[in-house]
Amino acid sequence: MNCKGLLLDIEGTLTHQGALIAGAAESLAWLHEQGLDYRLLTNITARSPATISAELAVLGLAVPAQHIQTATTACVAWLHTQQGRSSYLLVPDSVRPLFDGLLINERNPDYVVIGDIGQAFCYDNLNRVFRLLSGGARLIALQKNPFWFAADGPSLDCGAFVAALEYASGQTAQVTGKPSSLFFEMALQSIGCQAREVLVIGDDPGTDMAGASGIGARSVRVLTGKSAGLQRDDSGLASYCLASIAGLPQLLVQL
Amino acid sequence: MNCKGLLLDIEGTLTHQGALIAGAAESLAWLHEQGLDYRLLTNITARSPATISAELAVLGLAVPAQHIQTATTACVAWLHTQQGRSSYLLVPDSVRPLFDGLLINERNPDYVVIGDIGQAFCYDNLNRVFRLLSGGARLIALQKNPFWFAADGPSLDCGAFVAALEYASGQTAQVTGKPSSLFFEMALQSIGCQAREVLVIGDDPGTDMAGASGIGARSVRVLTGKSAGLQRDDSGLASYCLASIAGLPQLLVQL
Repeated sequence: MNCKGLLLDIEGTLTHQGALIAGAAESLAWLHEQGLDYRLLTNITARSPATISAELAVLGLAVPAQHIQTATTACVAWLHTQQGRSSYLLVPDSVRPLFDGLLINERNPDYVVIGDIGQAFCYDNLNRVFRLLSGGARLIALQKNPFWFAADGPSLDCGAFVAALEYASGQTAQVTGKPSSLFFEMALQSIGCQAREVLVIGDDPGTDMAGASGIGARSVRVLTGKSAGLQRDDSGLASYCLASIAGLPQLLVQL
Repeated sequence: MNCKGLLLDIEGTLTHQGALIAGAAESLAWLHEQGLDYRLLTNITARSPATISAELAVLGLAVPAQHIQTATTACVAWLHTQQGRSSYLLVPDSVRPLFDGLLINERNPDYVVIGDIGQAFCYDNLNRVFRLLSGGARLIALQKNPFWFAADGPSLDCGAFVAALEYASGQTAQVTGKPSSLFFEMALQSIGCQAREVLVIGDDPGTDMAGASGIGARSVRVLTGKSAGLQRDDSGLASYCLASIAGLPQLLVQL
């Protein structure tokens, strides 16, 4: 088996709309039996790995929180590699504890970290960050989604305000979620593997396959979730293609 | 004289940092004597033509308010050409009276007009506009400046929030200031001339010459204001080049 570790997408790959995809639990159990390490990767920013682990447990997947990487934990892991550098945080309170232990600086930080703070995106908060960027801080974004569907209608997401700050500052934000190489490099570091030793598995070529490609890793596209209804990979980015996660053990033994 | 009307920039062309540029008053007086009509064009959005006219009078230039076109009055003039269409306004209170007489619609407008509302750029105001854009309204921006220098430091300008709304909606805003063709077409309409009959005069190739080029008009670059210190036009966009506005009469008699 020419593979030491697996980087697995969650929504559309292991779960879909609140239910397990058939074969997901069996495939994860098989990985465990084979002694293959893995991480679950998601672009979620506002929920912690502990919360996501608890949600998966309800569905029947036992995954420890330390095996789950979000766009936020990837950011935190990356900031921990930046020794001596400081950050200003404009992130939701729900994820602020994940940043404990990092150097925080409200006057002249090296980085400004921005996440979706919803109603708290006001002129003063944005202008404070703009001035820090003008002073030399680098813009780090947990995500850059343009909008999301709230109960009462489409609503501006973090990405709109990232775009505002990019336009005003002339910077391009470093996004810490998929498909950024930063995100996948942090997953490699967590699992202790080289890019050529892992498989990235997911349903979204734009995030999963593009991310794998960016770090030079192989990828497996599953035709579930966003790829449901397709007969084959049409992206040209996937190394392998499976009808679903259920086929993973069989693919791995053939590698 | 192969010219029926003139479209003149103000700051850097007629005035500079609160003072008249030598020859500006004499050149305007000469135009008047010759019966040549003109308009003064500026990207100012928050001050009205009446206010600008009063400011110029203090400096010694007598220009009626009706001869001054701002990015805001160009927007208003354009909206008046859009019969039966309605607008939602997110503009400073100082210019709101200029929009009197236009059809205003807070539910499903054809256009959303955005200007610099400073501190009033909050999540709710921006999200209300985003939903109108999602519903099919078209984004019209009085200006798209990324930032300005306030007394206490660089500060986000209207353009940053226009960029946020463009990113979220997928639209490209119609900017009503220079160098947009909309702006120059409205000036032509005001002065009752065809593009080939006018000269556009200014110190900024990016706004004045580019705008003239966009409508197919000739332009004169003056080497004052933003072009001070140059010996010749280096943009390749100007039809003619003058050391300053003082040379305009001599150029016009030669055309």
